Amino acid sequence: MADLYLVLLHHPVLDKNGQIVTSALTNMDIHDIARTARTYGVRQFYVAHPVKALRVLAAKIMEHWDTGYGSTYNVTRKDALSLVRLEHDLDSTLLTLERESGMRPRLVITSARGGPNRTTFGALREQLASSDEPHLLVFGTGWGLTAEITERADVILEPVCGPTDYNHLSVRSAAAVILDRLCGAR
Amino acid sequence: MADLYLVLLHHPVLDKNGQIVTSALTNMDIHDIARTARTYGVRQFYVAHPVKALRVLAAKIMEHWDTGYGSTYNVTRKDALSLVRLEHDLDSTLLTLERESGMRPRLVITSARGGPNRTTFGALREQLASSDEPHLLVFGTGWGLTAEITERADVILEPVCGPTDYNHLSVRSAAAVILDRLCGAR
Repeated sequence: MADLYLVLLHHPVLDKNGQIVTSALTNMDIHDIARTARTYGVRQFYVAHPVKALRVLAAKIMEHWDTGYGSTYNVTRKDALSLVRLEHDLDSTLLTLERESGMRPRLVITSARGGPNRTTFGALREQLASSDEPHLLVFGTGWGLTAEITERADVILEPVCGPTDYNHLSVRSAAAVILDRLCGAR
Repeated sequence: MADLYLVLLHHPVLDKNGQIVTSALTNMDIHDIARTARTYGVRQFYVAHPVKALRVLAAKIMEHWDTGYGSTYNVTRKDALSLVRLEHDLDSTLLTLERESGMRPRLVITSARGGPNRTTFGALREQLASSDEPHLLVFGTGWGLTAEITERADVILEPVCGPTDYNHLSVRSAAAVILDRLCGAR
């Protein structure tokens, strides 16, 4: 079974007009995705933001849950947030991950948009079950990841589809569905 | 195919000590679960809170997305939030739903806790596909629904399980996984 890692990128991402921007760090993203990651056995959840002041803010919030009042108020939250590592961007995340795991991970890009060469959830689930290589699932904020990131993919995952044509899940909800499809009990 | 409805209850719910409380309304719950509901073809998403001031606040926020600046800034959000109806509690929700659909819905209780008489996701998925009765999926906030609510269930759904024993998904994430398991493209 491959070790699974997540990264949430805030730059470079698209805004609704297709411009490349840096999105704001959202506290709820860290909490929700950490809890999802902990549920589905993810090894580490990297939150990448290029602005140091926001990383410092995130560290302060996490400290509340790790050693502050939150650590005794809600131990399940402390448990989930222990998976979070703050990073600068995708490259710094890859360096950290490679240093920790000893291997360069396979990059799995998630997207709400369809396109050529998408890998199905079933195929990636099988790949994860039979692989020894670490896999890094890449999630974008804002209106999604840029071509610059997508082009680096080893795998581009098919979009999550329901029975409608609406494809605007929050990244928190999308991460939950994607991990459930890849690692949920069947 | 059965019409599917959701309700998010804020009273009566449990706190972490098992006491019955009223939880606060969370803006992100409304947005995330509305987007999930819209993705998976849910007919209506009821947000039930007994405190009128909080329902008024929620209505004001929704107005921003329905007719205010948000309605042109992000039409996909307007689309999702159009499914939301504010209610007082489970009983007022059932009255409204029965008036709109002409039928009393089957009550499907969700819970992160296991127990006797749980219905599997597969079984409920089949039931929804072959039924003409509306089904109302009930989600709790805080630390979950009380026995008073659970006892009214026609169906108690099995908990969402990953490969770990951690069962503390946010209600936003749990709603996404549950709807994907019941209605996601297969």
